[in-house]
Amino acid sequence: MNGRELTSPLLESAVTELSRLPGLGRKTALRLALYLLRREPEQAEALAHAISEMRRGVRYCTVCHNISESDVCPLCSNPARDSSTICVVETVKDVMSIENTGQFRGLYHVLGGVISPIDGIGPDQLEIDSLVERVAAGGVREVILALSATMEGETTDFYIYRRLGTLPVEVTQLARGVSVGNELEYTDEITLGRSLINRRPFNS
Amino acid sequence: MNGRELTSPLLESAVTELSRLPGLGRKTALRLALYLLRREPEQAEALAHAISEMRRGVRYCTVCHNISESDVCPLCSNPARDSSTICVVETVKDVMSIENTGQFRGLYHVLGGVISPIDGIGPDQLEIDSLVERVAAGGVREVILALSATMEGETTDFYIYRRLGTLPVEVTQLARGVSVGNELEYTDEITLGRSLINRRPFNS
Repeated sequence: MNGRELTSPLLESAVTELSRLPGLGRKTALRLALYLLRREPEQAEALAHAISEMRRGVRYCTVCHNISESDVCPLCSNPARDSSTICVVETVKDVMSIENTGQFRGLYHVLGGVISPIDGIGPDQLEIDSLVERVAAGGVREVILALSATMEGETTDFYIYRRLGTLPVEVTQLARGVSVGNELEYTDEITLGRSLINRRPFNS
Repeated sequence: MNGRELTSPLLESAVTELSRLPGLGRKTALRLALYLLRREPEQAEALAHAISEMRRGVRYCTVCHNISESDVCPLCSNPARDSSTICVVETVKDVMSIENTGQFRGLYHVLGGVISPIDGIGPDQLEIDSLVERVAAGGVREVILALSATMEGETTDFYIYRRLGTLPVEVTQLARGVSVGNELEYTDEITLGRSLINRRPFNS
């Protein structure tokens, strides 16, 4: 497709902006724009309004760096949460995933990624200093490392573990093992090996 | 995912509106929203503005029913186009596809679909009356039927052919045949049969 075929510069401009979103090619963007043209005008207005308001209103929590509409996010300011436990994650999405498990009542710390020399991401680009400060301020009993089980994730785990070394805090890591629902036959050998080493007493 | 996990109602609202678009699930919508939050605010504003302006400014050409920003679209009002030939298509997208071939200099007529009793679409819901009026007004030498080569498309072809029956106009249909680049082995037998019946003198 080229610019010639769109008889409307307004459509052209909407297609261009939509196709700047990740994973949306020009064809998909055109399909979405034509869909909005077929629907009632209110739907397009509601979408435009929601995007604009979101970008203006959402910022990052100054404590845990999760998204928030206030300086301190609802999780950090909730007195019912256990502030003695901090779960360290890579992204905002990981906070959502863990919240969805319903298994965690502590607070979070969003690093913004993992150490990855190949992508030019060093510890300074991540929220590691602020994590150390949070723990050093006291009141934190346990730091749970919930980063990806990749080389970069484990490197970052180790780096954080070292940085927290002198502080009186327990550092734990998510369990590695066979995925629930997975057949043993299709579990990779490294995972299988670690799940064997970390075997646990059977509770019926 | 449920509503609980999003710590921001503004994000929640943007995700909801994005996921109303066809083919975008809630997970994809969340990914797009978080992407916009990571980018500079100008990108989200430009997207919101483009969507809103498009929906407000784009309407349909009163002659051919293609999208337009004025009463009569740039194609219909272009004196360099051949107004004696009208190409009948299903959708606005088909106009774009044919324009992209660079093989057509006439005008269009967008039906808005094809006759499909199973979907409850009869001739009255399509722009067929306005096509007959356009042709009856005179000056049209040829009507090219460029609808889908499906049962519904061919039914609509036949219906239009009958409706135009008494008017002094030639009605043609897009050639059916083996797709360019396709191996004969993988061409279906109906297409192959029709391409044999409609064989043409070889031009080297």
